[in-house]
Amino acid sequence: MSKDYLMRKDIYSLIKEKIVSGSFLPGQRLNVRNLADILHISTTPVRDALLKLSNEGFVEVFPRRGFFVKALSEKEVLDIIEARIMVEGFCINNYFDEIKKCEDIDSLKEKMLEVKQTKNRKLFDELDKKFHSAIICASYNNNIIRFFNELWEKIEILRRHNERFMKSNEEHLKIILSILADNKKKAYKALLIHLSNVKKETLYSLNEGIKTITRGGVL
Amino acid sequence: MSKDYLMRKDIYSLIKEKIVSGSFLPGQRLNVRNLADILHISTTPVRDALLKLSNEGFVEVFPRRGFFVKALSEKEVLDIIEARIMVEGFCINNYFDEIKKCEDIDSLKEKMLEVKQTKNRKLFDELDKKFHSAIICASYNNNIIRFFNELWEKIEILRRHNERFMKSNEEHLKIILSILADNKKKAYKALLIHLSNVKKETLYSLNEGIKTITRGGVL
Repeated sequence: MSKDYLMRKDIYSLIKEKIVSGSFLPGQRLNVRNLADILHISTTPVRDALLKLSNEGFVEVFPRRGFFVKALSEKEVLDIIEARIMVEGFCINNYFDEIKKCEDIDSLKEKMLEVKQTKNRKLFDELDKKFHSAIICASYNNNIIRFFNELWEKIEILRRHNERFMKSNEEHLKIILSILADNKKKAYKALLIHLSNVKKETLYSLNEGIKTITRGGVL
Repeated sequence: MSKDYLMRKDIYSLIKEKIVSGSFLPGQRLNVRNLADILHISTTPVRDALLKLSNEGFVEVFPRRGFFVKALSEKEVLDIIEARIMVEGFCINNYFDEIKKCEDIDSLKEKMLEVKQTKNRKLFDELDKKFHSAIICASYNNNIIRFFNELWEKIEILRRHNERFMKSNEEHLKIILSILADNKKKAYKALLIHLSNVKKETLYSLNEGIKTITRGGVL
């Protein structure tokens, strides 16, 4: 693998991580020259990384104005969650019996009960990804898994700052209990209710909550 | 946009097109030095393009052996079609009324009837993409549309060489007639039958038909 390629890949991952984690805020300008200076590299690989991120919808390019962290529109948020409904719904309906093989669902349940008691936000975030991934992994289908991960990353920043994680935890528990009770129909219904609430909370984070995010500094 | 980036993007598109169209055959070795010489460029951008294509599943890298056009396994073909069942099924079920707004379905029907009479393979290929895209576009969801296009590209080479396009045309007609009759349930059922046959024919192309593809020369 060429050194040049590896470097570009690292810069791409670095900038993407800053966007996904909220260190770079939606709407924030990404100055190519400044980034290159901080990283002690030339502007070309920085520009390339930003162009790649713009192809993937994380960054916007405006001619003569430069690069900006993409601010998602309401329509884009709705589309992402609609796609999650498609993917997760399909997996629950078609690979229900496999879910328990992908993840220790009993242990997930115990940890969710712990969140319920301790209100541990960090633990919730960890379980959130684990739980939804278990549903997706049950497909053993790389196309579906990759697609889901892309969707997840795109709204990571909004999800991390939503304020109703205790309610989400309750909803996860409901789905988990249906899975443990081998009740597919109930699990599917609980998933749809949960994702419909995720839609509302993500739109709320987009319109209101995002204002409260503390800027995490520059690269 | 940097000249360097544009060039890399062009090389990437060029090689991908050769793979998707079947000019570069599954299993064929892609020699970085030869490709660079033919294109009058250095090896770095060729290598980068090949690495990008390997990330996307079009090319395989073997340490110390080099780059090869990815030969899809049966499991990968099945996974791609399973993902199509998910996406197309979801769109028919959820955006049925929008399909007619995305494409002139009446005109599609007329052209399918023409294929039935003339056995025009080129026209069929054109309609095939147009028809399935109309179902997907009805979602007006860029995530879903992009995902579908990726899936489509991955089995393009196998689809182009399947031998039962007249049967596929008949199946398309059945779905189209159900759409025109506003019968969602029937359209969904016909779609599932069609995709189940697509699965069989694609596996056949993978195991047998691909051997008959004439090598299209080098870049």
